[in-house]
Amino acid sequence: MYELACELFPICRSITGAGFRQSLKILDEAMGGGILKIHSIASGSKVFDWEVPAEWEINDAYIITPDGEKICDFKQNNLHVLNYSEGIDDEISLDELQEHLYSIENYPDAIPYVTSYYKRRWGFCIKHEDRVKLKEGKYKVFIDAKHHENGVLNYADLLIPSTQKIKDEILISTYLCHPSMANNELSGPVVAAFLAKWLLELKERKYNYRFIFAPETIGSIVYLNKHLKHLQKHTKAGFALSCIGDDNAYSLIQTPNENTLADKVALHTLKDKNNFKKFSFLDRGGNERQFCSPLVNLPVVCVCRTRFGDYKEYHTSKDDLSFISQTSLQNSFQTLQEIIMNLEVNEIYQITTFCEPNLGKRDLYHTLNQGVTKKPISADFLAFCDGKNDVLDIASKLNIQAYELKDLIEKLKFHRLVKPSEEIHDNPHQ
Amino acid sequence: MYELACELFPICRSITGAGFRQSLKILDEAMGGGILKIHSIASGSKVFDWEVPAEWEINDAYIITPDGEKICDFKQNNLHVLNYSEGIDDEISLDELQEHLYSIENYPDAIPYVTSYYKRRWGFCIKHEDRVKLKEGKYKVFIDAKHHENGVLNYADLLIPSTQKIKDEILISTYLCHPSMANNELSGPVVAAFLAKWLLELKERKYNYRFIFAPETIGSIVYLNKHLKHLQKHTKAGFALSCIGDDNAYSLIQTPNENTLADKVALHTLKDKNNFKKFSFLDRGGNERQFCSPLVNLPVVCVCRTRFGDYKEYHTSKDDLSFISQTSLQNSFQTLQEIIMNLEVNEIYQITTFCEPNLGKRDLYHTLNQGVTKKPISADFLAFCDGKNDVLDIASKLNIQAYELKDLIEKLKFHRLVKPSEEIHDNPHQ
Amino acid sequence: MYELACELFPICRSITGAGFRQSLKILDEAMGGGILKIHSIASGSKVFDWEVPAEWEINDAYIITPDGEKICDFKQNNLHVLNYSEGIDDEISLDELQEHLYSIENYPDAIPYVTSYYKRRWGFCIKHEDRVKLKEGKYKVFIDAKHHENGVLNYADLLIPSTQKIKDEILISTYLCHPSMANNELSGPVVAAFLAKWLLELKERKYNYRFIFAPETIGSIVYLNKHLKHLQKHTKAGFALSCIGDDNAYSLIQTPNENTLADKVALHTLKDKNNFKKFSFLDRGGNERQFCSPLVNLPVVCVCRTRFGDYKEYHTSKDDLSFISQTSLQNSFQTLQEIIMNLEVNEIYQITTFCEPNLGKRDLYHTLNQGVTKKPISADFLAFCDGKNDVLDIASKLNIQAYELKDLIEKLKFHRLVKPSEEIHDNPHQ
Repeated sequence: MYELACELFPICRSITGAGFRQSLKILDEAMGGGILKIHSIASGSKVFDWEVPAEWEINDAYIITPDGEKICDFKQNNLHVLNYSEGIDDEISLDELQEHLYSIENYPDAIPYVTSYYKRRWGFCIKHEDRVKLKEGKYKVFIDAKHHENGVLNYADLLIPSTQKIKDEILISTYLCHPSMANNELSGPVVAAFLAKWLLELKERKYNYRFIFAPETIGSIVYLNKHLKHLQKHTKAGFALSCIGDDNAYSLIQTPNENTLADKVALHTLKDKNNFKKFSFLDRGGNERQFCSPLVNLPVVCVCRTRFGDYKEYHTSKDDLSFISQTSLQNSFQTLQEIIMNLEVNEIYQITTFCEPNLGKRDLYHTLNQGVTKKPISADFLAFCDGKNDVLDIASKLNIQAYELKDLIEKLKFHRLVKPSEEIHDNPHQ
Repeated sequence: MYELACELFPICRSITGAGFRQSLKILDEAMGGGILKIHSIASGSKVFDWEVPAEWEINDAYIITPDGEKICDFKQNNLHVLNYSEGIDDEISLDELQEHLYSIENYPDAIPYVTSYYKRRWGFCIKHEDRVKLKEGKYKVFIDAKHHENGVLNYADLLIPSTQKIKDEILISTYLCHPSMANNELSGPVVAAFLAKWLLELKERKYNYRFIFAPETIGSIVYLNKHLKHLQKHTKAGFALSCIGDDNAYSLIQTPNENTLADKVALHTLKDKNNFKKFSFLDRGGNERQFCSPLVNLPVVCVCRTRFGDYKEYHTSKDDLSFISQTSLQNSFQTLQEIIMNLEVNEIYQITTFCEPNLGKRDLYHTLNQGVTKKPISADFLAFCDGKNDVLDIASKLNIQAYELKDLIEKLKFHRLVKPSEEIHDNPHQ
Repeated sequence: MYELACELFPICRSITGAGFRQSLKILDEAMGGGILKIHSIASGSKVFDWEVPAEWEINDAYIITPDGEKICDFKQNNLHVLNYSEGIDDEISLDELQEHLYSIENYPDAIPYVTSYYKRRWGFCIKHEDRVKLKEGKYKVFIDAKHHENGVLNYADLLIPSTQKIKDEILISTYLCHPSMANNELSGPVVAAFLAKWLLELKERKYNYRFIFAPETIGSIVYLNKHLKHLQKHTKAGFALSCIGDDNAYSLIQTPNENTLADKVALHTLKDKNNFKKFSFLDRGGNERQFCSPLVNLPVVCVCRTRFGDYKEYHTSKDDLSFISQTSLQNSFQTLQEIIMNLEVNEIYQITTFCEPNLGKRDLYHTLNQGVTKKPISADFLAFCDGKNDVLDIASKLNIQAYELKDLIEKLKFHRLVKPSEEIHDNPHQ
């Protein structure tokens, strides 16, 4: 995963344009090639309250100082150009230039990441320590950029089908529109790509899995505009992945009502991770803002390590490849596997016997009773299989992860000691 | 307000009689004159489980000691006579007198306030330090009081109409039957009178406001006997005001089920006030006892500073004009204004756009995204406008007072980004 | 009660057989004779997922060591024989013997209680300190035991009728299948027998009381197999009594959903007992395992002092008559009386007056109001008689035991100030 992040890192992405398309292609190849469906929508299209912006083309950008030095060189670091900037080719005074410079006084050696998608501006981002050294004089400012009003916005998706005849879907969403930053947001796309690879190789999948790789905000709005009714009908749970490449504690941003299956399974899986932090929807930040908006109302939580904005390097050149690691990406990948395994094993079961079953005669329990012995987990599980609790509920009571019950549930199904909810009739006496 | 309290203080009030009528007249004049509707009900009338008591007339009362000294002089302090006392004119021994004296051993320099409404007695209230000095001998006891069986009980109300066509009412209740005591209970009537004045001057009022000035217990029973069905149908929230002239922390006495709009708005408004105290209905004491009785079941909470009975001066001559202040009355007045403003702004809204609206294009948000910026409060508010949360719910999540959202809501309504509950249809897709 | 325990202690009981029958007879005599109905079911009968085991006959058992010493003598302590053991008469080596010996390494001077009901084995239970002294050589092992396939399993019940025409039942269940151990489980049967005696002597009983004395697990399964529908229809609350003869704090094992009347009344009664411990259904152990199994779903909690398994002496010869006492049994008996009295007094009442009633005119309250006086409990009780709260709810609010309200409720009923739920009409105005 770290290698994939390294390959994607240098590309200058934005919400539209060649960098975004190139990045989708690299991701697709990492998944085996021909896996992702890449879509486009014409600039100017109306999507709910928004309009799809023009396609941005950026080729080069720099400033020549009065001393003839080339600074803010796009080819050195693409963060130097205001993302989605207009083109410019001019000579201006330092005062004029200052109005187009962005820097962070409290973080003088970092280039900030600044965007202006919905108002046309031009500008450069610069380390504050370099900005203060600029002298009076004439500056040549050059940005070779264009906005193509007849361009497109791209996004990709992938539907991995259930191996059963279930229509329910699990949504995994991430965004890919940020230029050269590692945690926010190459960690999400990279982990999502590997999750998709893993799911494709599984022999059994209860659910359909829908992956979305789109630009932040406008990308998810475009996607929802096209698929809203389908998603509202079929999405059982969804996960927006963001900032999951660092090695800090896990964070969960819950849905507005904090009561969906996505909240439940994420909380079940993450609650025992070291220093886990739970946030309300007030702390939202990525595409969950659209998925959970009141009239959309999808069951989507956001899973992070350090929450966006809670680390100093966020949205600067310091969020580079040294801020993430293969170990951290791998740990996040495994945690998301656990979430998925917990969802896959989840079901409502009902015991089939009146009273406890005789576990001993089925070799599910010892036949010799020697004083204090712990009840077998099978008995504890069955004690709560009342046709109302699901496996997540019972596993939480038992203080284990739901997926750890998988083999036991298979055994109990084999012995016909439990039946799943769709076979439960109103009257258990029949 | 303090001046009005001073004017009312010397009058000897009881649950019936001239003192109560005179006090109502003074309150009415303070509100502009001709504002209050003053009602009467004949003594002997049956009201639910009760009977309206005879009208009390008190002119004078005193004791002449064996030494010829005049003590317990009603004209010095009207608390000296047992409130609602029978008349007497007799010479009796000290032993006989003792059976008709009331004092507080642990609070020797205070005259207690004692009443006997439903059993005819005569008696005097005296400082304990004076009582212990009484010598053997003949005492002349004189009370010039009568009970008029053909009298009346008075009460007043005032309905300030909604400027919209809404029938819902907010109830403000207070009682005026106590003689010369300041906090309990001139603070309630005085603050209520000024609230009414303020509401009358407002250009816009969503709700109707019903003010009741009545004797405690029997007065509210009389009122409920006459208006029960109307009040049950139209009362959205009510507030019994009591002991709100001192400068201590606010107290709230909740309804029995603690789940009405009155509980919700009072808690929302008071929860952040210093040292705020929340009480259950077990700690009730004033007219909320009747309003919240099970078959009446109106949504009425009681708002106090120090709760009745929780301060030493309560129901004694020490609850005098030095115990309250203009500053404290003003602070209580403002807090009740906040409660009313929070009610007025409260409504259930639903966002009108799928996904977040584009706030930038309406100048409701900046268009330049520079790293970590706090989301605008408009976005936070809209994120919870799901047609179920009301403004109080959302303001509580946002940790601000509901009325602080008023301008924002007006802006969002202007941009048609939210619609109120009565315009919400079942299917938001239509 | 302690005497009765002493009489029962020496008998060798098991889930079937003469010892169990003899114990039932002694219990019945302690209750007056002819009180218990004793039932039997044929060995081999199918009961839900189980089969009734053969009847066990045990006459003698011992081991003769190579030195000719008689050890593990059944006549000294019936715990020495593996409960439900097969017969044997053989000479074997120490190695062979070891496979049939049971002892507790960490508790070397205790004989463990071991059973093998559903797999035929033979064996001896021995103090570990004696086991380690055994030398090489030939051992004579002798167990005079038989399994009668045409035998029966016995259990007893008793229905004490309501003195009203109510069909609701309270279930008291205990088990009697353990041999010579005192707390687990002679304490339960002994306390249950005395509770039945007390209930039989009461002049008034709102509920029917059903007592069950049966072998653990298989006994309750047999009982449920026969009476399931009746019990599901009529059982309002039930109590499994176990380990209630020691002098430690009370323990409550709640039902799976922790929300039945049994949970509510037990919690109400026990919550203020010193060091009271509340357990979830995960900590179940006795017949509540069957009563609360998902498809049976009866409202039965288990009441203990120290929970089974939480004391060292549990299921060993150390759980002897010195571990329990008359004082502790008496205290447990009284606590169960309180639970029953709280159930008997429980009812939903509705006040009959609009507003508070005039308590003074009925001599239910003083008529002289002298400053701060505590409101009478009658007023507090009536304030919550809304036709929804039951007496347990109100008593919990008032921080007293429900049964302490009995006299007050009688007075309020006498004055027609409250009416019970069955007389509450939808419209209180009628």
